Amino acid sequence: MSAVRKTYLTDATGELRVPMREIVLSTGDSVVLYDTSGPYTDADITTDVERGLPPLRSGWIEQRGHRDTQLACARRGEITREMEFIALREGVSAEKVREEVAAGRAVIPANRNHPETEPMVIGEAFLVKVNANIGNSAVASSIEREVEKMVWAARWGADTVMDLSTGRDITKTREWILRNSPIPVGTVPIYQALEKVGGKAEELSWEAYRDTVIEQCEQGVDYMTVHAGVRRDFIPLTARRKTGIVSRGGSILAAWCLANGRENFLYEHFDELSDILREYDVTYSLGDGLRPGCIYDANDEAQLAELKTLGELGRVARERDVQVMIEGPGHVPMHKIKENVDLQKELCDDAPFYTLGPLTTDIAPGYDHITSAIGAAMIGWYGTAMLCYVTPKEHLGLPNRQDVKDGVIAYKIAAHAADLAKGHPGAQGRDDELSRARFDFRWEDQFNLSLDPDTAARYHDETLPAAPAKRAHFCSMCGPKFCSMKITQEVREYARTHGLETEQALEAGMREKADEFQRTGAGVYRPA
Amino acid sequence: MSAVRKTYLTDATGELRVPMREIVLSTGDSVVLYDTSGPYTDADITTDVERGLPPLRSGWIEQRGHRDTQLACARRGEITREMEFIALREGVSAEKVREEVAAGRAVIPANRNHPETEPMVIGEAFLVKVNANIGNSAVASSIEREVEKMVWAARWGADTVMDLSTGRDITKTREWILRNSPIPVGTVPIYQALEKVGGKAEELSWEAYRDTVIEQCEQGVDYMTVHAGVRRDFIPLTARRKTGIVSRGGSILAAWCLANGRENFLYEHFDELSDILREYDVTYSLGDGLRPGCIYDANDEAQLAELKTLGELGRVARERDVQVMIEGPGHVPMHKIKENVDLQKELCDDAPFYTLGPLTTDIAPGYDHITSAIGAAMIGWYGTAMLCYVTPKEHLGLPNRQDVKDGVIAYKIAAHAADLAKGHPGAQGRDDELSRARFDFRWEDQFNLSLDPDTAARYHDETLPAAPAKRAHFCSMCGPKFCSMKITQEVREYARTHGLETEQALEAGMREKADEFQRTGAGVYRPA
Repeated sequence: MSAVRKTYLTDATGELRVPMREIVLSTGDSVVLYDTSGPYTDADITTDVERGLPPLRSGWIEQRGHRDTQLACARRGEITREMEFIALREGVSAEKVREEVAAGRAVIPANRNHPETEPMVIGEAFLVKVNANIGNSAVASSIEREVEKMVWAARWGADTVMDLSTGRDITKTREWILRNSPIPVGTVPIYQALEKVGGKAEELSWEAYRDTVIEQCEQGVDYMTVHAGVRRDFIPLTARRKTGIVSRGGSILAAWCLANGRENFLYEHFDELSDILREYDVTYSLGDGLRPGCIYDANDEAQLAELKTLGELGRVARERDVQVMIEGPGHVPMHKIKENVDLQKELCDDAPFYTLGPLTTDIAPGYDHITSAIGAAMIGWYGTAMLCYVTPKEHLGLPNRQDVKDGVIAYKIAAHAADLAKGHPGAQGRDDELSRARFDFRWEDQFNLSLDPDTAARYHDETLPAAPAKRAHFCSMCGPKFCSMKITQEVREYARTHGLETEQALEAGMREKADEFQRTGAGVYRPA
Repeated sequence: MSAVRKTYLTDATGELRVPMREIVLSTGDSVVLYDTSGPYTDADITTDVERGLPPLRSGWIEQRGHRDTQLACARRGEITREMEFIALREGVSAEKVREEVAAGRAVIPANRNHPETEPMVIGEAFLVKVNANIGNSAVASSIEREVEKMVWAARWGADTVMDLSTGRDITKTREWILRNSPIPVGTVPIYQALEKVGGKAEELSWEAYRDTVIEQCEQGVDYMTVHAGVRRDFIPLTARRKTGIVSRGGSILAAWCLANGRENFLYEHFDELSDILREYDVTYSLGDGLRPGCIYDANDEAQLAELKTLGELGRVARERDVQVMIEGPGHVPMHKIKENVDLQKELCDDAPFYTLGPLTTDIAPGYDHITSAIGAAMIGWYGTAMLCYVTPKEHLGLPNRQDVKDGVIAYKIAAHAADLAKGHPGAQGRDDELSRARFDFRWEDQFNLSLDPDTAARYHDETLPAAPAKRAHFCSMCGPKFCSMKITQEVREYARTHGLETEQALEAGMREKADEFQRTGAGVYRPA
């Protein structure tokens, strides 16, 4: 019997328990996979959305006895429990995790006030990660639905979620999400700050923003998008764009700069902001407020001016022991993608790159999970550490449950394709197991090894729903007579039983064996 | 009012009428796009599936007065009507089309017995094309459904279809498809040949195959997949693969070689076969019977040995004035895709490459239109001329109507992304128009310019169905207060009315204008 179940990796002491997904194959073998779904998929754990998840990291944080960030620890050679957890999860040494964090090439987004999170790492040296955006807008959605979307996104493989709520009950929604989230949660604090000043961008202030950030740090937000690179002087560079400024935060800050005739207050107060984030070990996600919103605007002067500024700000943050990721575009045609990664590495000292897509064409609203999965796979291969998903509803409306799943699956495909292309150790194992199951007609194993077993099984069953079809040596695509895998197996079996395994044997033996096979070989097309 | 309608480009004489799709924008402007949908989308033409389409090319074929192939014509400097039609369609000179065909870098699949087809070209110098596979299997489907799938695939942008039927009524199904198809039709004749010998691969013969090919040539098939490169000596090279031979034709021929102890009869009779195809101007699609069926098997010895043979066979065919495309994989991780194109160009003298995907990972059955759209976009960028679609049902079952649409749309995305990356003249125009419509909140224009207006409109309307939302300056994704495009427009409008259009002006004028904007600028967040 083929089955999927929760399992745990433990360290030598038995104290660390790292959740993994185990696929028990019908052959008796097991495949153990990285798992983001949290306690929700452990049949032995009862979860209660009103009470939240157990605070996995509370003891570690207490025992640590200091408030240093993961970066500060890494720099002075300390391997934290989080790093050990991640090492087991990624199948690397804890020292490797420490090294990458110390160098600023990787981040561990883990606010000390979000002890429910299962530690994970974002960096080029590790598995490519996927973020899912959730959050209600003023037009639609509810708190319960957003919490459920977070659990659902994690279920399908989201490594982090960003809560982009802009409507009412923004604090309450975030609290519920944080207390129930086994994955790091990111936010864009300027959305809430704007609510505080009645939606009037020109009335935003450093003080209102700072208070919002502190409130969110206290709640446990793990990383924050900060558009400190939208400098006043860059705004005119967007004037000849086809779609101007498409980042919400970027447009708000541009409006503020223009209304107040002053430099972006986030840029001017960046030191102070960094000191706040350090206190909680909140990671910066330096936002690309001037990212291109269409193919025409890709890699333009505004975008690259901001990227350079983000590199400077990243150095300021790391000097203060604050972890930093850099956000990237957006809409970029394929031939301009690599330049984004190369420049980001050069200008931002190899800080982890975190990109939205990019979408490789503008002409497919309704399918932008696909236009962008193409760009995401490529930019992941080139070195991007985390991919922010795009759902089919992008540009059109707020994603529902199905859209969230479609977006996450498209991005898990992109991330895994990138891991394969990077030659990440172990990535190909899952492909090989699934291909072997396919060749052996172990249908249930094939489904369970796939990113979405439900859909794979449902598609198969649409035309061949009967139970015996699950053991059949064909599917409805080609039917029994034309199944190339079936024929190949029979050819191999013939070759094996006739000593024709090697090329030499084949050459020598083929002619004399031919008559025999012709007499007995109708089995190749034996009816199913 | 925004609208989509059929239009025609004509040449100076007014004799050629090339069908195009015209998007009439709400601004009064028009965008004219390449259109594959045939007479079915012309409101002035009544089609009758029982009578078939009008034979557009009959007069041209008669007037020509000789049976030379497009390649033979091109070589001696003759520009055919088909080339003129294509030149208008692609927006290039007819001489350019002739040159590419003469050099063997492009093909015009147009059997003289398929006069209903609207001529099109497949070659790296032109727009990247998409093929959709249809055809019933022994397990499911019906003739009517397959004809309808062909019309449906063309409606969404398929440039050719392949009829891969293997069940009963194979001849009748093909006849119906051909008489009603405005796009070239390809087949894999060995499927029908196998039916003729009762499904016993070992009983296949050159004679049975030849008769099948002649029957299909007579019917009007435009191009044929011929697995002449599956040489007997290459079969043992697949022995250590994870998924062996995954091409149906390839596995049938491997079984035949093994059973008969002889060289592939298609290889041995290739001259004779070429002479038959030349008579009808049927184009070779030299099949990759040994393509890899999983990531593990990509770019292996078996695959590359066959590719080299296909290059040799291509030269033999072109010497006989037969047009040739070369088929390619399959399953290939991103970092091994470019090598496929580079080797194909080198070994096959720049003959048009026609690839299936490739799928960039094996782990997502149910989503292989996405795993493969990633590979297809990249391989198209690198130089592949036509992309064979993969539907969500790949590996699982026979695609239905929705799967066909999903496959075609995913591949139109890949093909267009490739055109953009190649810098194909005119390709970006559609992106720019759509982006401009998006920025201007011209929702109907945005929908009509997209690959799938129905879905784009439906997604938008899910949360904002009321008619006024079609004119609203926001969507439900961010809501009115957070729409970056709305804010940007207002920022621009402010800058424009205050003479702040240039960087210099901004610098100089910003401070003094700031107070004024602050007093009046609440408009940025005016409620919708």
